[in-house]
Amino acid sequence: MTAYTATVTVRLKHGVLDPEAETTKQALERLGFELEALRSADRFEVDLEADSTAAARERAEDMAERLLANPTIHDYDVEVDER
Amino acid sequence: MTAYTATVTVRLKHGVLDPEAETTKQALERLGFELEALRSADRFEVDLEADSTAAARERAEDMAERLLANPTIHDYDVEVDER
Repeated sequence: MTAYTATVTVRLKHGVLDPEAETTKQALERLGFELEALRSADRFEVDLEADSTAAARERAEDMAERLLANPTIHDYDVEVDER
Repeated sequence: MTAYTATVTVRLKHGVLDPEAETTKQALERLGFELEALRSADRFEVDLEADSTAAARERAEDMAERLLANPTIHDYDVEVDER
């Protein structure tokens, strides 16, 4: 077994409204910052042990599909690194 | 001016309790997943125009310090890519 960290990034799908990100963008603009767009995402860093990078990735993808992301509104991606 | 995307990742500092991450970890374990630890972070993807990568990075770091992160409890890092 090898120790891995799987990073799962969960984003709203294109077209899903994100009022929190819009509010953050406006607050930055009120502070005088120039920006064109702001998107927010959730990032989960999962420490796990697995037999291979492929097994760690598969488990992290299962976690995203079962709990971390809502497939109706979210896309996700997974990165796996050895710890 | 060049178009950049700055990705700001905001994490709780080591030692700051994260009950939401703990709850998520327990929920994954109840679903049968094996994992050792789970950390959550916020990720902001900011599209902006700047004269150089260094200028884009500096603006994104200012955004993190002024609004996106709370220096009492958060660490942050910034990555900048050309769009």
